Amino acid sequence: MSDTSRSHGTKSVRLSLRPRDLMAEAARPGSWDARVVTLFPDAFPGILGLSLTGKALEQGLWSLTTTDLRRFGLTRHRNVDAPPAGGGPGLVLRADVVGPALEAARGPGPSIYLSPRGRPFDQAMAREFAAGPGVTLLCGRFEGVDQRVLDHHDIREVSLGDFVLTGGEIAAQALLDACVRLLPGVLGNAASTEEESHSNGLLEHPQYTKPAEWEGRRIPDVLTSGDHGRVATWRREQAEAITRQRRPDLWARYEGD
Amino acid sequence: MSDTSRSHGTKSVRLSLRPRDLMAEAARPGSWDARVVTLFPDAFPGILGLSLTGKALEQGLWSLTTTDLRRFGLTRHRNVDAPPAGGGPGLVLRADVVGPALEAARGPGPSIYLSPRGRPFDQAMAREFAAGPGVTLLCGRFEGVDQRVLDHHDIREVSLGDFVLTGGEIAAQALLDACVRLLPGVLGNAASTEEESHSNGLLEHPQYTKPAEWEGRRIPDVLTSGDHGRVATWRREQAEAITRQRRPDLWARYEGD
Repeated sequence: MSDTSRSHGTKSVRLSLRPRDLMAEAARPGSWDARVVTLFPDAFPGILGLSLTGKALEQGLWSLTTTDLRRFGLTRHRNVDAPPAGGGPGLVLRADVVGPALEAARGPGPSIYLSPRGRPFDQAMAREFAAGPGVTLLCGRFEGVDQRVLDHHDIREVSLGDFVLTGGEIAAQALLDACVRLLPGVLGNAASTEEESHSNGLLEHPQYTKPAEWEGRRIPDVLTSGDHGRVATWRREQAEAITRQRRPDLWARYEGD
Repeated sequence: MSDTSRSHGTKSVRLSLRPRDLMAEAARPGSWDARVVTLFPDAFPGILGLSLTGKALEQGLWSLTTTDLRRFGLTRHRNVDAPPAGGGPGLVLRADVVGPALEAARGPGPSIYLSPRGRPFDQAMAREFAAGPGVTLLCGRFEGVDQRVLDHHDIREVSLGDFVLTGGEIAAQALLDACVRLLPGVLGNAASTEEESHSNGLLEHPQYTKPAEWEGRRIPDVLTSGDHGRVATWRREQAEAITRQRRPDLWARYEGD
Protein backbone atom coordinates (compact mmCIF):
# COMPACT_ATOMS: atom_id res chain seq x y z
CA MET A 1 0.00 0.00 0.00
CA SER A 2 1.56 3.30 -1.01
CA ASP A 3 1.64 6.33 1.22
CA THR A 4 -0.58 8.14 -1.21
CA SER A 5 -3.39 5.63 -1.23
CA ARG A 6 -3.35 5.17 2.49
CA SER A 7 -3.39 8.85 3.18
CA HIS A 8 -6.11 11.40 2.78
CA GLY A 9 -3.42 13.98 2.49
CA THR A 10 -4.11 17.49 3.57
CA LYS A 11 -6.67 18.32 0.92
CA SER A 12 -10.28 18.29 1.90
CA VAL A 13 -12.54 16.02 -0.09
CA ARG A 14 -16.21 16.62 -0.50
CA LEU A 15 -18.51 13.76 0.31
CA SER A 16 -21.97 12.86 -0.74
CA LEU A 17 -23.66 10.32 1.49
CA ARG A 18 -20.72 7.96 1.84
CA PRO A 19 -17.30 8.84 3.19
CA ARG A 20 -14.57 8.26 0.66
CA ASP A 21 -11.13 6.90 1.07
CA LEU A 22 -9.66 8.76 -1.87
CA MET A 23 -8.68 12.29 -2.60
CA ALA A 24 -11.39 13.15 -5.04
CA GLU A 25 -13.49 16.19 -5.76
CA ALA A 26 -12.36 19.43 -4.24
CA ALA A 27 -14.35 20.64 -1.28
CA ARG A 28 -16.79 23.42 -1.85
CA PRO A 29 -14.99 26.58 -0.77
CA GLY A 30 -16.04 27.53 2.72
CA SER A 31 -17.51 24.12 3.43
CA TRP A 32 -17.05 23.03 7.04
CA ASP A 33 -14.50 20.26 7.10
CA ALA A 34 -14.95 17.20 9.35
CA ARG A 35 -12.24 14.53 9.40
CA VAL A 36 -12.51 11.39 11.48
CA VAL A 37 -9.77 8.88 12.33
CA THR A 38 -11.44 5.61 13.27
CA LEU A 39 -11.22 1.82 13.23
CA PHE A 40 -14.82 1.83 11.99
CA PRO A 41 -15.02 4.05 8.91
CA ASP A 42 -18.21 2.18 7.91
CA ALA A 43 -19.94 3.76 10.90
CA PHE A 44 -19.82 7.11 9.06
CA PRO A 45 -21.79 9.06 8.10
CA GLY A 46 -24.31 6.75 9.84
CA ILE A 47 -27.09 8.82 11.36
CA LEU A 48 -25.33 11.96 10.10
CA GLY A 49 -26.30 10.86 6.57
CA LEU A 50 -30.00 11.15 7.46
CA SER A 51 -32.24 14.10 8.17
CA LEU A 52 -30.95 17.66 8.30
CA THR A 53 -27.28 16.77 8.66
CA GLY A 54 -27.51 14.38 5.70
CA LYS A 55 -29.22 16.97 3.54
CA ALA A 56 -26.52 19.50 4.47
CA LEU A 57 -23.84 16.92 3.58
CA GLU A 58 -25.43 16.40 0.16
CA GLN A 59 -25.62 20.16 -0.34
CA GLY A 60 -21.92 20.51 0.44
CA LEU A 61 -22.50 22.70 3.50
CA TRP A 62 -20.05 20.42 5.25
CA SER A 63 -17.74 17.61 4.19
CA LEU A 64 -16.83 14.38 5.94
CA THR A 65 -13.64 12.40 5.42
CA THR A 66 -12.78 9.22 7.29
CA THR A 67 -9.29 7.83 7.79
CA ASP A 68 -9.17 4.13 8.55
CA LEU A 69 -6.76 3.65 11.45
CA ARG A 70 -6.26 0.01 10.42
CA ARG A 71 -4.50 1.13 7.25
CA PHE A 72 -1.73 2.51 9.44
CA GLY A 73 -1.42 -0.75 11.37
CA LEU A 74 1.97 -2.43 11.73
CA THR A 75 3.28 -5.68 10.24
CA ARG A 76 1.22 -7.70 7.83
CA HIS A 77 -1.41 -8.13 10.58
CA ARG A 78 -1.92 -4.37 10.67
CA ASN A 79 -1.73 -4.29 14.46
CA VAL A 80 -2.90 -1.02 15.95
CA ASP A 81 -2.68 -1.77 19.65
CA ALA A 82 -0.64 -3.48 22.37
CA PRO A 83 -1.01 -4.20 26.11
CA PRO A 84 -0.60 -1.24 28.50
CA ALA A 85 2.93 -0.60 29.79
CA GLY A 86 2.91 -1.45 33.49
CA GLY A 87 0.23 -4.11 33.05
CA GLY A 88 -3.54 -4.09 33.35
CA PRO A 89 -6.47 -5.20 31.24
CA GLY A 90 -7.20 -4.28 27.65
CA LEU A 91 -5.15 -2.79 24.86
CA VAL A 92 -3.81 0.69 24.13
CA LEU A 93 -3.71 2.27 20.66
CA ARG A 94 -0.06 2.70 19.65
CA ALA A 95 1.54 6.13 19.18
CA ASP A 96 3.39 4.89 16.08
CA VAL A 97 0.04 4.00 14.47
CA VAL A 98 -2.15 6.88 15.62
CA GLY A 99 0.55 9.51 14.97
CA PRO A 100 0.94 8.84 11.23
CA ALA A 101 -2.84 8.44 10.82
CA LEU A 102 -3.42 11.82 12.46
CA GLU A 103 -0.75 13.46 10.30
CA ALA A 104 -2.43 12.11 7.18
CA ALA A 105 -5.96 13.00 8.27
CA ARG A 106 -5.41 16.39 9.81
CA GLY A 107 -7.26 19.34 8.34
CA PRO A 108 -7.80 22.93 9.37
CA GLY A 109 -9.19 23.54 12.84
CA PRO A 110 -8.53 21.78 16.14
CA SER A 111 -7.61 18.12 16.53
CA ILE A 112 -9.78 16.47 19.16
CA TYR A 113 -9.54 13.16 20.95
CA LEU A 114 -12.89 11.96 22.24
CA SER A 115 -12.28 10.60 25.70
CA PRO A 116 -14.02 10.53 29.08
CA ARG A 117 -10.93 12.29 30.46
CA GLY A 118 -11.56 15.37 28.37
CA ARG A 119 -13.27 18.69 28.93
CA PRO A 120 -17.04 18.13 28.82
CA PHE A 121 -18.55 19.03 25.46
CA ASP A 122 -21.16 21.77 25.67
CA GLN A 123 -23.08 24.18 23.47
CA ALA A 124 -20.39 26.88 23.79
CA MET A 125 -17.82 24.43 22.44
CA ALA A 126 -20.20 23.45 19.62
CA ARG A 127 -20.50 27.13 18.69
CA GLU A 128 -16.73 27.57 18.82
CA PHE A 129 -16.07 24.58 16.55
CA ALA A 130 -18.92 25.49 14.18
CA ALA A 131 -17.50 29.00 13.79
CA GLY A 132 -14.10 27.60 12.72
CA PRO A 133 -13.03 25.82 9.51
CA GLY A 134 -13.76 22.33 10.84
CA VAL A 135 -12.43 19.64 13.17
CA THR A 136 -10.27 16.52 13.05
CA LEU A 137 -11.60 13.85 15.43
CA LEU A 138 -9.72 10.85 16.79
CA CYS A 139 -11.98 8.02 17.93
CA GLY A 140 -10.45 5.82 20.63
CA ARG A 141 -11.15 2.20 21.41
CA PHE A 142 -10.04 -0.25 24.07
CA GLU A 143 -8.17 1.29 27.01
CA GLY A 144 -7.35 4.50 25.18
CA VAL A 145 -4.44 5.98 23.25
CA ASP A 146 -0.76 6.18 24.11
CA GLN A 147 -0.40 9.49 25.97
CA ARG A 148 2.66 10.49 23.92
CA VAL A 149 0.67 10.95 20.73
CA LEU A 150 -1.74 13.29 22.52
CA ASP A 151 1.16 15.33 23.91
CA HIS A 152 3.15 15.34 20.67
CA HIS A 153 0.27 16.51 18.49
CA ASP A 154 -1.17 18.92 21.07
CA ILE A 155 -4.58 17.31 20.88
CA ARG A 156 -7.57 18.64 22.78
CA GLU A 157 -9.36 16.00 24.81
CA VAL A 158 -13.12 16.40 24.76
CA SER A 159 -15.61 14.27 26.67
CA LEU A 160 -19.21 13.69 25.69
CA GLY A 161 -20.09 13.27 29.37
CA ASP A 162 -19.30 11.37 32.53
CA PHE A 163 -19.90 7.93 31.09
CA VAL A 164 -17.85 5.37 29.17
CA LEU A 165 -18.54 4.23 25.60
CA THR A 166 -17.04 1.25 23.74
CA GLY A 167 -15.40 3.75 21.41
CA GLY A 168 -15.30 7.35 20.29
CA GLU A 169 -17.43 6.92 17.17
CA ILE A 170 -20.82 7.74 18.73
CA ALA A 171 -19.25 10.66 20.60
CA ALA A 172 -17.79 11.92 17.31
CA GLN A 173 -21.21 11.75 15.67
CA ALA A 174 -22.81 13.64 18.56
CA LEU A 175 -20.14 16.35 18.37
CA LEU A 176 -20.50 16.66 14.59
CA ASP A 177 -24.30 16.75 14.76
CA ALA A 178 -24.24 19.52 17.38
CA CYS A 179 -21.80 21.56 15.25
CA VAL A 180 -23.31 20.96 11.82
CA ARG A 181 -26.81 22.08 12.85
CA LEU A 182 -25.30 25.46 13.80
CA LEU A 183 -23.74 26.00 10.36
CA PRO A 184 -25.42 28.69 8.24
CA GLY A 185 -28.19 27.25 6.06
CA VAL A 186 -28.53 23.89 7.81
CA LEU A 187 -31.61 24.53 9.93
CA GLY A 188 -34.61 25.79 8.01
CA ASN A 189 -35.53 28.31 10.65
CA ALA A 190 -32.50 30.00 12.18
CA ALA A 191 -34.58 31.34 15.05
CA SER A 192 -34.97 27.83 16.39
CA THR A 193 -31.38 27.75 17.66
CA GLU A 194 -31.99 30.88 19.70
CA GLU A 195 -34.81 29.80 21.98
CA GLU A 196 -33.66 26.26 22.65
CA SER A 197 -32.08 24.75 25.74
CA HIS A 198 -28.56 25.93 26.59
CA SER A 199 -28.61 28.83 24.13
CA ASN A 200 -29.40 31.37 26.87
CA GLY A 201 -28.17 29.39 29.87
CA LEU A 202 -31.63 28.02 30.68
CA LEU A 203 -33.41 24.76 29.92
CA GLU A 204 -36.25 25.21 27.46
CA HIS A 205 -39.85 25.85 28.59
CA PRO A 206 -42.41 23.06 28.01
CA GLN A 207 -43.95 22.82 24.57
CA TYR A 208 -47.54 22.02 23.57
CA THR A 209 -49.32 21.60 20.28
CA LYS A 210 -52.65 20.36 18.90
CA PRO A 211 -55.00 18.88 20.01
CA ALA A 212 -56.28 21.37 22.59
CA GLU A 213 -57.23 18.50 24.90
CA TRP A 214 -55.59 15.07 25.14
CA GLU A 215 -56.26 12.38 27.73
CA GLY A 216 -58.10 14.95 29.83
CA ARG A 217 -55.12 17.32 29.75
CA ARG A 218 -55.52 20.79 28.24
CA ILE A 219 -52.93 23.14 26.77
CA PRO A 220 -52.28 25.90 29.38
CA ASP A 221 -54.72 28.77 28.70
CA VAL A 222 -52.02 31.40 28.36
CA LEU A 223 -50.64 29.67 25.25
CA THR A 224 -53.95 29.92 23.44
CA SER A 225 -54.69 33.50 24.64
CA GLY A 226 -53.10 35.15 21.62
CA ASP A 227 -51.34 37.57 24.01
CA HIS A 228 -47.70 37.39 22.86
CA GLY A 229 -46.40 39.32 25.86
CA ARG A 230 -48.04 36.95 28.35
CA VAL A 231 -46.82 33.93 26.37
CA ALA A 232 -43.24 35.23 26.46
CA THR A 233 -43.44 35.94 30.20
CA TRP A 234 -44.93 32.51 30.93
CA ARG A 235 -42.26 30.74 28.89
CA ARG A 236 -39.46 32.64 30.58
CA GLU A 237 -40.88 31.85 34.04
CA GLN A 238 -41.26 28.17 33.12
CA ALA A 239 -37.71 28.00 31.76
CA GLU A 240 -36.37 29.60 34.95
CA ALA A 241 -38.40 27.32 37.21
CA ILE A 242 -37.40 24.14 35.41
CA THR A 243 -33.73 25.13 35.35
CA ARG A 244 -33.76 25.98 39.07
CA GLN A 245 -35.43 22.68 39.90
CA ARG A 246 -33.53 20.32 37.61
CA ARG A 247 -30.13 21.92 37.26
CA PRO A 248 -29.03 23.99 40.25
CA ASP A 249 -25.56 24.14 38.64
CA LEU A 250 -26.87 25.88 35.50
CA TRP A 251 -29.14 28.09 37.59
CA ALA A 252 -26.25 29.30 39.75
CA ARG A 253 -24.25 30.19 36.63
CA TYR A 254 -27.27 31.92 35.07
CA GLU A 255 -27.87 34.02 38.18
CA GLY A 256 -24.18 34.91 38.33
CA ASP A 257 -24.19 36.30 34.78
CA MET B 1 -52.78 -0.78 8.76
CA SER B 2 -54.00 -2.92 11.62
CA ASP B 3 -53.14 -2.26 15.23
CA THR B 4 -51.29 -5.52 15.32
CA SER B 5 -48.97 -4.84 12.44
CA ARG B 6 -48.16 -1.34 13.54
CA SER B 7 -47.47 -2.38 17.08
CA HIS B 8 -44.54 -4.20 18.51
CA GLY B 9 -46.89 -5.23 21.27
CA THR B 10 -45.55 -5.99 24.67
CA LYS B 11 -43.53 -9.00 23.70
CA SER B 12 -39.84 -8.57 23.26
CA VAL B 13 -38.40 -9.59 19.92
CA ARG B 14 -34.86 -10.74 19.43
CA LEU B 15 -32.87 -9.04 16.75
CA SER B 16 -29.88 -9.99 14.73
CA LEU B 17 -28.11 -7.09 13.05
CA ARG B 18 -31.20 -5.31 11.75
CA PRO B 19 -34.10 -4.07 13.82
CA ARG B 20 -37.34 -5.73 12.89
CA ASP B 21 -40.76 -4.30 12.65
CA LEU B 22 -42.55 -7.54 13.40
CA MET B 23 -43.16 -9.61 16.44
CA ALA B 24 -40.98 -12.54 15.59
CA GLU B 25 -38.71 -14.84 17.52
CA ALA B 26 -39.00 -14.78 21.27
CA ALA B 27 -36.25 -12.95 23.08
CA ARG B 28 -33.62 -15.01 24.76
CA PRO B 29 -34.71 -15.19 28.39
CA GLY B 30 -32.79 -12.68 30.42
CA SER B 31 -31.70 -10.72 27.37
CA TRP B 32 -31.53 -6.97 28.00
CA ASP B 33 -34.35 -5.33 26.12
CA ALA B 34 -33.86 -2.03 24.26
CA ARG B 35 -36.82 -0.43 22.51
CA VAL B 36 -36.54 2.78 20.54
CA VAL B 37 -39.35 5.03 19.27
CA THR B 38 -37.96 7.10 16.40
CA LEU B 39 -38.71 8.79 13.09
CA PHE B 40 -35.48 7.21 11.81
CA PRO B 41 -35.67 3.47 12.45
CA ASP B 42 -33.05 2.99 9.69
CA ALA B 43 -30.52 4.67 11.95
CA PHE B 44 -30.58 1.58 14.17
CA PRO B 45 -28.61 -0.41 15.06
CA GLY B 46 -26.12 1.81 13.21
CA ILE B 47 -22.82 1.83 15.05
CA LEU B 48 -24.35 -0.43 17.69
CA GLY B 49 -24.34 -3.19 15.06
CA LEU B 50 -20.52 -3.04 14.86
CA SER B 51 -17.82 -4.04 17.27
CA LEU B 52 -18.54 -5.35 20.77
CA THR B 53 -22.13 -4.12 20.93
CA GLY B 54 -22.86 -5.70 17.53
CA LYS B 55 -21.34 -9.01 18.56
CA ALA B 56 -23.42 -8.94 21.75
CA LEU B 57 -26.54 -8.21 19.70
CA GLU B 58 -25.81 -11.22 17.47
CA GLN B 59 -25.22 -13.37 20.54
CA GLY B 60 -28.58 -12.33 21.98
CA LEU B 61 -27.07 -10.69 25.05
CA TRP B 62 -29.37 -7.80 24.30
CA SER B 63 -32.22 -7.14 21.87
CA LEU B 64 -33.16 -4.03 19.95
CA THR B 65 -36.63 -3.18 18.67
CA THR B 66 -37.49 0.00 16.82
CA THR B 67 -40.94 1.54 16.56
CA ASP B 68 -41.39 3.90 13.64
CA LEU B 69 -43.16 6.99 14.93
CA ARG B 70 -44.35 7.78 11.40
CA ARG B 71 -46.59 4.73 11.46
CA PHE B 72 -48.60 6.41 14.19
CA GLY B 73 -48.94 9.62 12.19
CA LEU B 74 -52.36 11.16 11.57
CA THR B 75 -54.38 11.48 8.39
CA ARG B 76 -53.17 9.99 5.17
CA HIS B 77 -50.12 12.25 5.32
CA ARG B 78 -49.11 10.56 8.58
CA ASN B 79 -48.46 13.90 10.27
CA VAL B 80 -46.54 13.59 13.52
CA ASP B 81 -46.06 17.24 14.44
CA ALA B 82 -47.66 20.68 14.51
CA PRO B 83 -46.60 24.26 15.34
CA PRO B 84 -46.09 25.09 19.02
CA ALA B 85 -49.12 26.43 20.90
CA GLY B 86 -48.42 30.08 21.68
CA GLY B 87 -46.28 30.52 18.57
CA GLY B 88 -42.58 30.27 17.89
CA PRO B 89 -40.36 28.51 15.39
CA GLY B 90 -40.30 24.81 14.56
CA LEU B 91 -42.67 21.96 15.17
CA VAL B 92 -43.65 19.94 18.23
CA LEU B 93 -44.30 16.17 18.21
CA ARG B 94 -47.99 15.59 18.97
CA ALA B 95 -49.17 13.86 22.14
CA ASP B 96 -51.80 11.92 20.17
CA VAL B 97 -49.03 10.45 17.98
CA VAL B 98 -46.27 9.87 20.52
CA GLY B 99 -48.67 8.48 23.16
CA PRO B 100 -49.94 5.53 21.10
CA ALA B 101 -46.43 4.84 19.76
CA LEU B 102 -45.05 4.67 23.29
CA GLU B 103 -47.86 2.41 24.44
CA ALA B 104 -47.13 0.03 21.58
CA ALA B 105 -43.37 0.10 22.05
CA ARG B 106 -43.09 0.01 25.79
CA GLY B 107 -41.20 -2.86 27.39
CA PRO B 108 -39.97 -3.62 30.87
CA GLY B 109 -37.78 -1.03 32.57
CA PRO B 110 -37.96 2.76 32.51
CA SER B 111 -39.26 4.89 29.64
CA ILE B 112 -36.83 7.65 28.81
CA TYR B 113 -37.11 10.75 26.67
CA LEU B 114 -33.75 11.99 25.42
CA SER B 115 -33.79 15.75 25.78
CA PRO B 116 -31.38 18.53 26.74
CA ARG B 117 -33.83 19.37 29.55
CA GLY B 118 -33.26 16.04 31.27
CA ARG B 119 -31.02 14.82 34.06
CA PRO B 120 -27.48 14.47 32.69
CA PHE B 121 -26.63 10.90 31.77
CA ASP B 122 -23.69 9.51 33.72
CA GLN B 123 -21.99 6.23 34.53
CA ALA B 124 -24.15 5.67 37.62
CA MET B 125 -27.26 5.91 35.45
CA ALA B 126 -25.70 3.54 32.90
CA ARG B 127 -25.11 1.02 35.70
CA GLU B 128 -28.67 1.45 36.97
CA PHE B 129 -30.20 0.89 33.53
CA ALA B 130 -27.84 -2.02 32.72
CA ALA B 131 -28.82 -3.74 35.97
CA GLY B 132 -32.52 -3.60 35.03
CA PRO B 133 -34.51 -5.49 32.37
CA GLY B 134 -33.98 -2.85 29.67
CA VAL B 135 -35.13 0.58 28.54
CA THR B 136 -37.66 2.19 26.20
CA LEU B 137 -36.23 5.29 24.54
CA LEU B 138 -38.15 8.09 22.87
CA CYS B 139 -36.10 10.07 20.35
CA GLY B 140 -37.29 13.63 19.86
CA ARG B 141 -36.95 15.87 16.82
CA PHE B 142 -37.76 19.47 16.02
CA GLU B 143 -38.75 21.62 19.00
CA GLY B 144 -39.49 18.66 21.26
CA VAL B 145 -42.52 16.70 22.39
CA ASP B 146 -45.87 17.86 23.74
CA GLN B 147 -45.38 18.08 27.50
CA ARG B 148 -48.64 16.23 28.20
CA VAL B 149 -47.34 12.93 26.85
CA LEU B 150 -44.30 13.14 29.13
CA ASP B 151 -46.54 13.86 32.14
CA HIS B 152 -49.16 11.25 31.25
CA HIS B 153 -46.67 8.40 30.75
CA ASP B 154 -44.41 9.42 33.64
CA ILE B 155 -41.37 9.50 31.40
CA ARG B 156 -37.88 10.18 32.71
CA GLU B 157 -36.08 12.92 30.82
CA VAL B 158 -32.39 12.18 30.34
CA SER B 159 -29.86 14.50 28.71
CA LEU B 160 -26.66 13.40 27.01
CA GLY B 161 -25.08 16.71 27.98
CA ASP B 162 -25.41 20.48 27.77
CA PHE B 163 -25.62 20.66 24.01
CA VAL B 164 -28.35 20.40 21.40
CA LEU B 165 -28.61 17.66 18.76
CA THR B 166 -30.86 17.54 15.69
CA GLY B 167 -32.62 14.58 17.28
CA GLY B 168 -32.48 12.00 20.02
CA GLU B 169 -31.14 9.14 17.89
CA ILE B 170 -27.42 9.70 18.53
CA ALA B 171 -28.14 10.25 22.22
CA ALA B 172 -30.10 6.98 22.28
CA GLN B 173 -27.17 5.15 20.71
CA ALA B 174 -24.75 6.63 23.23
CA LEU B 175 -27.00 5.62 26.13
CA LEU B 176 -27.43 2.09 24.76
CA ASP B 177 -23.70 1.68 24.08
CA ALA B 178 -22.81 2.76 27.63
CA CYS B 179 -25.35 0.30 29.08
CA VAL B 180 -24.71 -2.67 26.80
CA ARG B 181 -20.95 -2.73 27.45
CA LEU B 182 -21.76 -3.19 31.16
CA LEU B 183 -23.94 -6.27 30.55
CA PRO B 184 -22.40 -9.56 31.68
CA GLY B 185 -20.40 -11.22 28.90
CA VAL B 186 -20.15 -8.22 26.58
CA LEU B 187 -16.61 -7.06 27.34
CA GLY B 188 -13.96 -9.71 27.00
CA ASN B 189 -12.16 -8.65 30.13
CA ALA B 190 -14.54 -7.68 32.93
CA ALA B 191 -11.73 -6.00 34.85
CA SER B 192 -11.53 -3.29 32.23
CA THR B 193 -14.75 -1.64 33.45
CA GLU B 194 -13.30 -1.31 36.94
CA GLU B 195 -10.21 0.81 36.30
CA GLU B 196 -11.66 3.14 33.70
CA SER B 197 -12.71 6.76 34.00
CA HIS B 198 -15.78 7.46 36.17
CA SER B 199 -15.88 3.96 37.70
CA ASN B 200 -14.19 5.14 40.91
CA GLY B 201 -14.99 8.85 40.66
CA LEU B 202 -11.65 9.71 39.04
CA LEU B 203 -10.53 10.27 35.47
CA GLU B 204 -8.27 7.51 34.22
CA HIS B 205 -4.47 7.71 34.48
CA PRO B 206 -2.48 8.12 31.23
CA GLN B 207 -1.76 4.96 29.25
CA TYR B 208 1.38 3.96 27.35
CA THR B 209 2.35 1.00 25.21
CA LYS B 210 5.10 -0.11 22.84
CA PRO B 211 7.39 1.20 21.47
CA ALA B 212 9.53 2.19 24.47
CA GLU B 213 10.57 5.38 22.69
CA TRP B 214 8.58 7.34 20.12
CA GLU B 215 9.40 10.76 18.66
CA GLY B 216 11.99 11.22 21.42
CA ARG B 217 9.40 10.50 24.13
CA ARG B 218 9.94 7.55 26.48
CA ILE B 219 7.43 5.54 28.50
CA PRO B 220 7.75 6.70 32.15
CA ASP B 221 10.34 4.48 33.89
CA VAL B 222 8.02 3.39 36.66
CA LEU B 223 5.77 1.59 34.15
CA THR B 224 8.62 -0.57 32.89
CA SER B 225 10.08 -1.20 36.38
CA GLY B 226 8.11 -4.39 36.95
CA ASP B 227 7.25 -3.14 40.45
CA HIS B 228 3.47 -3.57 40.60
CA GLY B 229 3.11 -1.60 43.82
CA ARG B 230 4.92 1.42 42.42
CA VAL B 231 2.91 1.19 39.19
CA ALA B 232 -0.36 1.18 41.15
CA THR B 233 0.73 4.15 43.27
CA TRP B 234 1.86 6.12 40.23
CA ARG B 235 -1.40 5.47 38.41
CA ARG B 236 -3.48 6.50 41.39
CA GLU B 237 -1.47 9.70 41.81
CA GLN B 238 -1.79 10.50 38.10
CA ALA B 239 -5.55 9.85 38.16
CA GLU B 240 -5.94 12.14 41.17
CA ALA B 241 -3.77 14.88 39.67
CA ILE B 242 -5.56 14.85 36.32
CA THR B 243 -8.99 14.86 37.97
CA ARG B 244 -8.04 17.75 40.27
CA GLN B 245 -6.69 19.73 37.34
CA ARG B 246 -9.34 19.03 34.70
CA ARG B 247 -12.48 18.47 36.70
CA PRO B 248 -12.62 20.35 40.01
CA ASP B 249 -16.31 19.32 40.23
CA LEU B 250 -15.49 15.60 40.19
CA TRP B 251 -12.53 16.12 42.50
CA ALA B 252 -14.71 17.89 45.10
CA ARG B 253 -17.19 15.01 45.02
CA TYR B 254 -14.37 12.45 45.26
CA GLU B 255 -12.82 14.16 48.25
CA GLY B 256 -16.24 14.39 49.93
CA ASP B 257 -16.82 10.62 49.66
